[in-house]
Amino acid sequence: MGNQDEKRPESLITHEEGGLARTALLAYSARSFGNFLGVKRTVARRRQIYEGKAKILYEGPEPGTLIQYFKDDATAFNAQKRGTISGKGVINNRISEHIFTSLATIGVPTHFIRRLNMREQLIRQVEIVPIEVVIRNVAAGSLSKRLGIEEGTQLPRTIIEYYYKDDALGDPMIADEHIACFGWATQDEMNDIADMAIRVNDFLSGMFAAIGIRLIDFKLEFGRVWDGDYARVILADEISPDGCRLWDIKTNQKLDKDRFRQDLGGVEEAYQEVARRLGLLQPEDESAVLDFDQHRKKRGK
Amino acid sequence: MGNQDEKRPESLITHEEGGLARTALLAYSARSFGNFLGVKRTVARRRQIYEGKAKILYEGPEPGTLIQYFKDDATAFNAQKRGTISGKGVINNRISEHIFTSLATIGVPTHFIRRLNMREQLIRQVEIVPIEVVIRNVAAGSLSKRLGIEEGTQLPRTIIEYYYKDDALGDPMIADEHIACFGWATQDEMNDIADMAIRVNDFLSGMFAAIGIRLIDFKLEFGRVWDGDYARVILADEISPDGCRLWDIKTNQKLDKDRFRQDLGGVEEAYQEVARRLGLLQPEDESAVLDFDQHRKKRGK
Repeated sequence: MGNQDEKRPESLITHEEGGLARTALLAYSARSFGNFLGVKRTVARRRQIYEGKAKILYEGPEPGTLIQYFKDDATAFNAQKRGTISGKGVINNRISEHIFTSLATIGVPTHFIRRLNMREQLIRQVEIVPIEVVIRNVAAGSLSKRLGIEEGTQLPRTIIEYYYKDDALGDPMIADEHIACFGWATQDEMNDIADMAIRVNDFLSGMFAAIGIRLIDFKLEFGRVWDGDYARVILADEISPDGCRLWDIKTNQKLDKDRFRQDLGGVEEAYQEVARRLGLLQPEDESAVLDFDQHRKKRGK
Repeated sequence: MGNQDEKRPESLITHEEGGLARTALLAYSARSFGNFLGVKRTVARRRQIYEGKAKILYEGPEPGTLIQYFKDDATAFNAQKRGTISGKGVINNRISEHIFTSLATIGVPTHFIRRLNMREQLIRQVEIVPIEVVIRNVAAGSLSKRLGIEEGTQLPRTIIEYYYKDDALGDPMIADEHIACFGWATQDEMNDIADMAIRVNDFLSGMFAAIGIRLIDFKLEFGRVWDGDYARVILADEISPDGCRLWDIKTNQKLDKDRFRQDLGGVEEAYQEVARRLGLLQPEDESAVLDFDQHRKKRGK
C-alpha cells in the first residue's frame, strides 16, 4: 500500500462549522506536512455529506458514489459513553471490505465498490432505510436485559429485531406494524430485508465458526438504490466488530465492542484478533496495518 | 339486584398471608354484619386462584369456570403508582360485561359467561397467553414517548403492539419474532389474535364513536381453551376504561385511567360518564350503581 493511501481527509474537507478560513489553514498545514515528508499529495476538497459516530461520508468521485471514511471514534449506550479505539477505523475498513466482498459472491447485493486506502472505501450512494436490523442467535445485551434471559443462552431460533434509527429517541425498538404505519419501508422491502438478513446470518455464522468465533448477534443497515423508477434495497453501512457480538468459541472471550462498552480492556487487540483470524492481518504484519498517525508515533515523530 | 349480590368475598376467602385465624375472624365478622342487616348470606369459602392489580380470580362453581372479582385498586407505571378509584370495580364489571356480550354477538369468542353481582362475573377458565395486545389508532402514552409523536396525532393506520406480560421486567415490548422464538404463542394463535384484535377495534371504534368518544388505544388479553387436544384462543381479561384510552370527541377530555395516571382529578366521574353514555347507568341511577360499602358510607354507617 503506497503513501498515496494515507490521505488525511479530516484535515482537507470543508468543515461546515469551521468556515473557509479554517478550512484553508488546515488544507495548507496538510500540504506543508506532506511536503515535509516528501510526499506528493492530491489535495482534493471533498464535500462532507454526513458524519456519524464511527464514520464520515464524503462525496464520491462520480455521481451515485460516496467515500466512506472509518474513524477510530467509539461510542456506546446511545453515545453517552465516548472514546477512541486506536486503529479501529483501519481494521473495520478492512474487515467490512472482506465481508461485503464475500457476501457479493453469494449474491447478496451491497453498497461496497472497492477499498480506496487504509480508512476509506468507495461505496454506492443509497437512501438509508431508517431501520437498524439486529439479528440474534444467542441472548446478550439489550435482549438479555429486556426479557430477563441470561447472556450466552442459545436462542431456540434466530430473532430479527428492528430499531428505528433516531439518536434523539435512543433508537427505540419497533415492529413491522410501526414500519408499515409510518412508511419507513414497504412490505416488499421488509421481505427483502428479512430474507437478506437471514442469508447474511447464515453466511457469517459459517465464516466465523470456521475461525473459532461464535456469532452472537449483529446489526445491519440497508439502503435504497434506484434503477429508474424502481427502487431496491441493498446491504449498506458496515459489518465489523463495532456492530457484531463475536465470542471465542472455546473461551467465550468477547472479541467486539463490548470490551469497550464494559471496560474490559484489550479492545484494540480484540479487533486485531478478528482481522488476524480472518486472514486479513498476518502476525508479522501487525504493525504494517497500522495507519499513518500510528506509524509516525512509533517512529517517535 | 338483590342483596344476594353483595357478597364481600375479600373477607371470606382464605388470605394465604392471613392464616386461618384471621380468615375465620373475617368470615365471622362478615356473618355478623350480614345478620345485623337482617340479610341471609351464603358463606362459601372460595379458593383464590390469582390476585392481580385490579382483579381477583376465584375458583368457579363448576370445573372450567372462574369468578372474576373487580377491585377498586388502581395502579400505573408498572405499579409504581398505586391508589383506589372508588366504585371502579363495579363500573368496570358492568362495562366489561356489556362489551364482551356485544362482541359475542358479532362472533368474537370471549371468556365471559355472565355477571354474577356488582363486582363479579363468571368466566371460562383459560390459560392466559402471556402477551398484552395493544391496539393503537391515535398516538398517545408510551408510543408518543418512544417514537416522538405528539399525543393525539391520528396514526396513518392502526398499529398492533405486543408486550410480554411480566411485571418484573416491566412488560417489555416484543415482536412476532420473540413470540415465535420463545413459543409464547403459535403462529396460528397469533394470526387469530391479530384478526380478533382488528375486529374488536372496529367494533369498539363504532360503539364509542356513537356515544361521542374517540377510541385512542386499548389493551386486550387472550387465553387458550381446549376442545380435547385442540386449543383455540378467545378474548379474556376485561375491556374497561382501565385498559382503554377514551377521549371525548369534542373536547378531547380524557375519560379513562390517564386521569389517575396524570392526577387530572375527576377519575370516578370519568368512569361513570363512560358507563352513562353506554346506557349502563341512567342519570338518576348514579347512586344505585354504587356498591354496598359506598351505600353504607352514604347512610353514615
